[in-house]
This record gives sequence, structure tokens and C-alpha cells, in this order.
Amino acid sequence: MTQPLAVAVLGASGRMGSEAVRAIEAAADLHLVAALGRKDPLEELVAAGAAVVVDLTVPDSTEQNVAFAVEHGMHAVVGTTGWDSERLGRLQDLLALNPEVGVLIAPNFALGSVLATAFAARAAKYFESVEVIELHHPNKVDAPSGTAERTAVLIAEARAEAGLAASPDATRTSRDGARGCDVDGVRVHSVRLRGLVAHQEVLFGGVGEQLTIRHDSFHRESFMPGVLLGVREVGSHPGLTVGLDGYLDLQA
Amino acid sequence: MTQPLAVAVLGASGRMGSEAVRAIEAAADLHLVAALGRKDPLEELVAAGAAVVVDLTVPDSTEQNVAFAVEHGMHAVVGTTGWDSERLGRLQDLLALNPEVGVLIAPNFALGSVLATAFAARAAKYFESVEVIELHHPNKVDAPSGTAERTAVLIAEARAEAGLAASPDATRTSRDGARGCDVDGVRVHSVRLRGLVAHQEVLFGGVGEQLTIRHDSFHRESFMPGVLLGVREVGSHPGLTVGLDGYLDLQA
Amino acid sequence: MTQPLAVAVLGASGRMGSEAVRAIEAAADLHLVAALGRKDPLEELVAAGAAVVVDLTVPDSTEQNVAFAVEHGMHAVVGTTGWDSERLGRLQDLLALNPEVGVLIAPNFALGSVLATAFAARAAKYFESVEVIELHHPNKVDAPSGTAERTAVLIAEARAEAGLAASPDATRTSRDGARGCDVDGVRVHSVRLRGLVAHQEVLFGGVGEQLTIRHDSFHRESFMPGVLLGVREVGSHPGLTVGLDGYLDLQA
Amino acid sequence: MTQPLAVAVLGASGRMGSEAVRAIEAAADLHLVAALGRKDPLEELVAAGAAVVVDLTVPDSTEQNVAFAVEHGMHAVVGTTGWDSERLGRLQDLLALNPEVGVLIAPNFALGSVLATAFAARAAKYFESVEVIELHHPNKVDAPSGTAERTAVLIAEARAEAGLAASPDATRTSRDGARGCDVDGVRVHSVRLRGLVAHQEVLFGGVGEQLTIRHDSFHRESFMPGVLLGVREVGSHPGLTVGLDGYLDLQA
Repeated sequence: MTQPLAVAVLGASGRMGSEAVRAIEAAADLHLVAALGRKDPLEELVAAGAAVVVDLTVPDSTEQNVAFAVEHGMHAVVGTTGWDSERLGRLQDLLALNPEVGVLIAPNFALGSVLATAFAARAAKYFESVEVIELHHPNKVDAPSGTAERTAVLIAEARAEAGLAASPDATRTSRDGARGCDVDGVRVHSVRLRGLVAHQEVLFGGVGEQLTIRHDSFHRESFMPGVLLGVREVGSHPGLTVGLDGYLDLQA
Repeated sequence: MTQPLAVAVLGASGRMGSEAVRAIEAAADLHLVAALGRKDPLEELVAAGAAVVVDLTVPDSTEQNVAFAVEHGMHAVVGTTGWDSERLGRLQDLLALNPEVGVLIAPNFALGSVLATAFAARAAKYFESVEVIELHHPNKVDAPSGTAERTAVLIAEARAEAGLAASPDATRTSRDGARGCDVDGVRVHSVRLRGLVAHQEVLFGGVGEQLTIRHDSFHRESFMPGVLLGVREVGSHPGLTVGLDGYLDLQA
Repeated sequence: MTQPLAVAVLGASGRMGSEAVRAIEAAADLHLVAALGRKDPLEELVAAGAAVVVDLTVPDSTEQNVAFAVEHGMHAVVGTTGWDSERLGRLQDLLALNPEVGVLIAPNFALGSVLATAFAARAAKYFESVEVIELHHPNKVDAPSGTAERTAVLIAEARAEAGLAASPDATRTSRDGARGCDVDGVRVHSVRLRGLVAHQEVLFGGVGEQLTIRHDSFHRESFMPGVLLGVREVGSHPGLTVGLDGYLDLQA
Repeated sequence: MTQPLAVAVLGASGRMGSEAVRAIEAAADLHLVAALGRKDPLEELVAAGAAVVVDLTVPDSTEQNVAFAVEHGMHAVVGTTGWDSERLGRLQDLLALNPEVGVLIAPNFALGSVLATAFAARAAKYFESVEVIELHHPNKVDAPSGTAERTAVLIAEARAEAGLAASPDATRTSRDGARGCDVDGVRVHSVRLRGLVAHQEVLFGGVGEQLTIRHDSFHRESFMPGVLLGVREVGSHPGLTVGLDGYLDLQA
């Protein structure tokens, strides 16, 4: 049997972080060697002998956390937001100096959601019509959701590349907003309902048929299989990968 | 065995009318005694001995057709649009003079759709959140659909009567139209997709649960069971009934 | 303003009981006067002045708990299982002696689920075809679920009363189990899937149309609105009521 | 502008064939040069100068039709069933002698259905649980559908390859058939409902999440975009391809 992989968690006392600690402890092939909070020094990562660092902290500290890991030859799996193109550029410079190190920055660790988006992008060029419906709890402050926007953008790109015209729509009389919002020519509808968590449907329509790709996220813990997959795979993907789909095998 | 009911169809060469002719001919308890087109004189209804007249003509002629039927003691089942409050008023005056005659004016004969709307109205007061999604073929010119508007209005009335506040919604940043249109405080979303016919979902959300009432209309022929139910029942409902739900038994 | 209703919870340290305690404490019109565990004497209910007793204990103790309440003039809302016809008979005898007391015994407090079943029973006679799909977490030991069985039985009764034949089915070659199980002539399918909680779809099919009534239970806390509705209403329903639907207003 | 592709249809008077004739005539980049019925000699294909032959005939004649096409240097798109391994072997021998010719044999031309199956096979290894529900009109004689069986087999293969155990299932008490049928360890449920055509849902479940891939086929004409795609692509795929998914581009 191979030795368990030594994993450290940064942001271990946060909501995502504490879930990650639990998930890593429960995985037979992983060994949690450090669980650091806000005030713990990063040097503990070295002392603990971490091979992979999971960063689930805050936008303010994620860049220096990841830089520390890379400089010390540790791979990093990052769920923290705030990685704009400037930060990504600096990280790539750093990775060029440490070519054996892998970093995964993933805005979404729910495997089903990542697969749903990937499938939607691949199906896009085969259908005359497409719309997106996302459904969330009523405390969400933005509409549409970031995932829905990203899905719509990828669909729009695939349609453009295939030379497809806009989805047909004969609407002449409409109440304001009935037809949803327009994201690069793709209509997106946002539903807010007590009881829901995070859900999304992509509806493709062609003559006489419909293809629907739906993802339901019922709990925050749905992110953990994706985090574990990232932890296990990051060592075999040197350099920077943005998006968990880069680690998924979608070939036949 | 009882004698078959003598039924006549007006507008028999139209799309709905020809379906109705077929459906009546196929029903063992009904006897088609006349199938009139635009230019056929209404007197043929009398000669044929029609007990029930099905009007599937056009807004311009429906009022005189129904008046003729009522004056000759025939019940009428009406699928033609164009019955505004003025016309309805004149019809009720006429029915007051012919108290044994029944008239059903139904904007929608799809049993499933009528039931879905009735159930949505009854469920409305038990849920904190509600939204409506209607989905149609892309040649539809109005959004939202008339059925969705009517459903939303009925839901809004039921909520108001029960003293419910608006569905919760923390949205602060939104693309135009993402949250759908507002029908009396109920959000309605209109999807247009090649391949679809006419579909509607009412989504109710409460703490930890969701109730969804969905209707799919795949074909125009879905209206025929409702037309036949109207034909069979109109004789037992003297006076004017608007909406097929008036004939449905929704008690336990 | 009216005085809050004095409510006591039996089984207050159990999973359902502790949720009920929280829900009652959060309701402005209710006042939690007692929260009893297994070993607390029922006499505390009297001392506390409870007007309504919520029993969320175990089958072994529920009958004596409810009897105590009724004999002391307290209404009871009961979520505990184990009420067979013999127990119900004894309870009705007791209620005959205390005609002003109301008891609600509800196998299911999720409003959406109760409504879904009630709507399905009402829709049943209008459709040629019907099947039930229930979906649960994979730790469930019985299939189909009790709710699905009860829904199917009610549908079967409504179809029989309306003189409907069996749902059409031309299947000649079939793998064992493909067509689900048969509950009084209604096909029921049980899906078990990690990530799910408790979900049910009733599918009605007619010529060219489909009506779907779906309920999703995402959390145990979805039962609380139904418990509160029971607590508020039980005083106005003297005698025994089985099933929360007896308190729901399903008229137009 | 490039010259339209010369296409011939065999079985042109059948249900599928006549749809294909219509679809090819409506496509600007295709030119229908022959539409042959059962008794028309195959030599007309040569006289008409067909570049692609669409075979939508019957199992008895499809092999000789395709052989004729291949021997005359025409590509073939085949929707007829009955191609067992023996026939396929003979066809491959023939294609070895005509290496520039392409033949597509597709059991299913609905693009959405083919994509749904392909996506399900790719998603299979990422989820702990999976079940398949297929829903059809009540005149279907077999259960489950061929597409559902094939989908389940592909899912089972992907799970086996990834070393996944069976989907978790704690069922101890069950009515016969409740848990569906077992196709290589994957549970499949068959629903039969008046009003439906052909529909399929693949449900994947993981901790806290669900991925659903659904396809609805509302009309036979839904096969035509797939037939046209086959016609346009077959010339660039010399040799034998079984399944339209071989022509689909599922890479990012």
C-alpha cells in the first residue's frame, strides 16, 4: 500500500475549512498533517511536512499563502475567491520558477456542477435554442448566479464558434423581465425560493426534442468530493489550472 | 342504455373544430348531428336536433352563435376567445330568460392545465415563496402566457387574503430581467425553446421543502377530453360558467 | 392582541422534539410552557397550564400521553407513529367523554407533502394514466415509502370510484421490476440516491398532456410549519382528526 | 458557394423515410437526387449520381442496400435495425476494399438522446449513486427501452473501470419491483404514460448533490437533425462508424 498523502488545511476553522478537515480525516489515502487558523504561522506547513496545501481562507491572504506553498515545493488546491488576472499573472511567474509544482484554483468544487457546465458547453452547438434557469435560496444578493453567468458565457462562445444564430424568439409583447436577462445572447432566469440551496438547469431545444442538464446542490458538503479529487490530482498537474474541469476526464 | 347526446360543432373545419368533430365521433355516448362551417346557416342546428352546441369559431361570430343556441334551448360549450365583460353581460341577460340552458365559456380546455391552476391557487396560502415558470415554442408572440398571468393573479389573491407578505428576495445586484416579470407581486419567467409546445411550472417553497405543480401540453388534441367533459356536463349546469374548473370536482 | 397559546412538547430532547421546541419558541403567537423528556412526569403539563400538547415521543408511550392530555382537557397534536385501529378506537371512546377536546394524529407534517397527496387524489379521476415515483436517500430500509403507498391507495380509490380501467400498458417483454411495483393497480417506482432526502412525483398522463405533482423534502425542519399549523388549529377541531389534510382548506 | 451534396433516400415512403425526404429537401446545402421505394431498382442511385445514400428501409434489405452503395463508392447513413455482428463483419470486409467510403450505422439519430447517453457515460465515475428512469407512451411493448439498457450498460462499464462499488442501497423490505430492474448493477425504472413519447432521465447522486441528465423526444422529426448531421459528416469519416456519437465533438 502506498503512503497516505500529507495534506494541510489553511482556514481550518472556517465553514468550508472545517468541512475539509473532516473530509480529509475521513479519507484513508490522505493524512491531515496541519490545520491552520488565521493566526498560525505558515512555517508550520514546512514543519508538518505537507505535500499539498488546501487554501480556504479569505481573498486578502490567499495570494501569500499560495506563494509560500509554491516556494516551498508544496502543491496547492485553492477555493478562496479574489484571484484576478493580476494575481494569476504573478502566480504563473512564480510557478515558472518552480515547474514541478501544481496549483489548482477552483471557483466551484461541486463535481456535479462542474460536470453540468462542461456538458452544457459541449452540447451548445447542437441545438437551435438554449436557456438557463438558476434557482437559489432567497438570501442570495446577486442575480443571476456566477455559475449561471459562466455557463451562459461558455454556451455563447460555443454557439458563436459553430456559427449559430441567436435562439429563435418571436416575442413582440412582453412584460418587463418576463424573458429573463441576456448574457451574451443567452437568456438566463433567476428563481429565489425559500427551502432551496443552489440549483441550475440548462435547457436545450431542437426540433421535436429537449435536452436538460440539471444540477442540485443541497449542502455545502457537496464541495468535498471535488476538494479531495483536487488534492489527489494536483501533484500530477504541474503549473496552474483554473477550474476543476481541467482535472476531469471527459473523453469517452 | 341511455340515448347518445346530440352534439353539433360550429367552426368544424378549423383546427380545433376538426379535432372536436373527430373526438365526438369517437365517443360512444355522444352523437354528432351537425358540423357547420363558416357559411352554413345556424338554422341547421335546429333541423339537426342538437342538444349541445360546441362553438369553436372566431371572436366575430361567437356571440351570435351562442345567442342563437340559447334562444333555441340548446346548451353551449364555447372555446372561442373574445368574450369581454360587455358580451358576458348580454349573455347573462339572455340566460336569465332561458333559465334551463347552460353555457360554458372556457379559455382553456386542457384538464391538466385547469387542474394545475386550481391546485396552485389552493396551495398558495401555505408557502412563504412562490414563482411561476412557463415554457413555450419560440413562435409565441406574448410573454408571459395568458395562463401564467392568470395563475399568478389567482396565487396573488390567495396570498393577499391569507395576509402573506411578498415572497422573500434579498436580491441587490441584478442584470435586467434576471428575476423575471412581476404579476401582482408574483415573479413569472418565460422560456422560449424550439421543440416545446406549452408547459408551466408553479414552484412553492417553504422551510426545507418545495412543492412543484407542472403541466405539459404536448398537442392540441390535449384539449379534447376537456371539451367532451364540457359537453357531457353543460346540461347539468344551467346559467353561465366561465372556466372549466367550475365543472371539476375538487373536493375530497 | 390575543394571549399566546400555551404549548407543551413531549419528547423534547428527540430530533423532532427539539426542532419543535425551537419552532414554538420562535412563534410570536405561541408560548412554550413545558418541554418534557422521557422521564419527566406528565403532571408537569397540568402545572404548566398547557392548552395544547405536542407528542413527538415513541410508539410505546404515545397512547398514554395522549390519553392523559385528553382527560385533562388539553388538545393534542401527535406525530408519533404506532396508532393502529385498536388504539384509535380507544382514543375515540375517550374523546366521546371529552367532546370539547381535539386530537390531531398526523403521519406527515410536511405541508407540501400533504397538499401533494391531496391534489393527486383529486386529480386521479381525470387522467387515463398515472404512476408514482418516490426518491429517497440510500439508507432507507423500505420500498416504496409509506407516503407513496398511501398516495397510490388514494389514487386507486378515486379511479375505482370514477369507474376508470387500469392505466394502459402494452408491455409484453420486461426485465423483472422494470415496471415498478403494483399498489392497488398503480405502478410505484422507488429510487435510492446518495444526496437525496425525501422526494415524490405523481405523474398523470392523458391524450397530449401530462400533469406532474412533485414534493421535495430537503430537511427535517420542513415538518415544523405543519406542526405549528396543527397546534394553532387543533382547538377548533374537536374530536379525532387523522391526517393534517383534515385541517387544510382546499376549497376554492 | 460549394455545390449541394447529392443525397438519395431508400425507404422514402416509410414514416422515417418521408420525414427524411422532407428534411433533405429543406436543407440548402443538400440536394435530393433520388427517393426510392421498396420496388425501385438500386441502379437508380447510380443514374442519379448520389454521393450519400440514406437507408431507412427494413432489416431484410438493409445489408444489400448498403453493400450496393459501398461497392459504387457512395457513403451510407443507416437508420435501419438488424445489424448483428455477422452483418457488421461482412460490411467491414467490404469497406476494407473501398477504403475511401464511409458508413454510419446509428440506432438513434436524436442528437439530444445521443448526447445525453454520452454525457451519462462520462459522468458515471464521479458519483456514488446512479439510477435511470425512462418514460414512454403506453403502447411500447418492451421495458426497459433499448436506449435505457444501453445507457445503463455504459454507466456500469465506466463505474467498473473506475473501481466503484455498487450504488448504496439499504432496502430490506420491498414490494416486488419497487426498486426497478437491474441492468449490470444499475437500477432502471420504466414508466408508461398516455401522452408521452420517449423520455429518459439519468440521476447521479453524491454527498449533498445531484446531477440529472434528461432527454425528451416529442416527435419522430427529432431524428432529422441527426440524420442531416450524419449525411454531412459521413464523407469525412471513411470506414465503419457505429453510433452517431462517433461524429459528435465532445472535447472542450
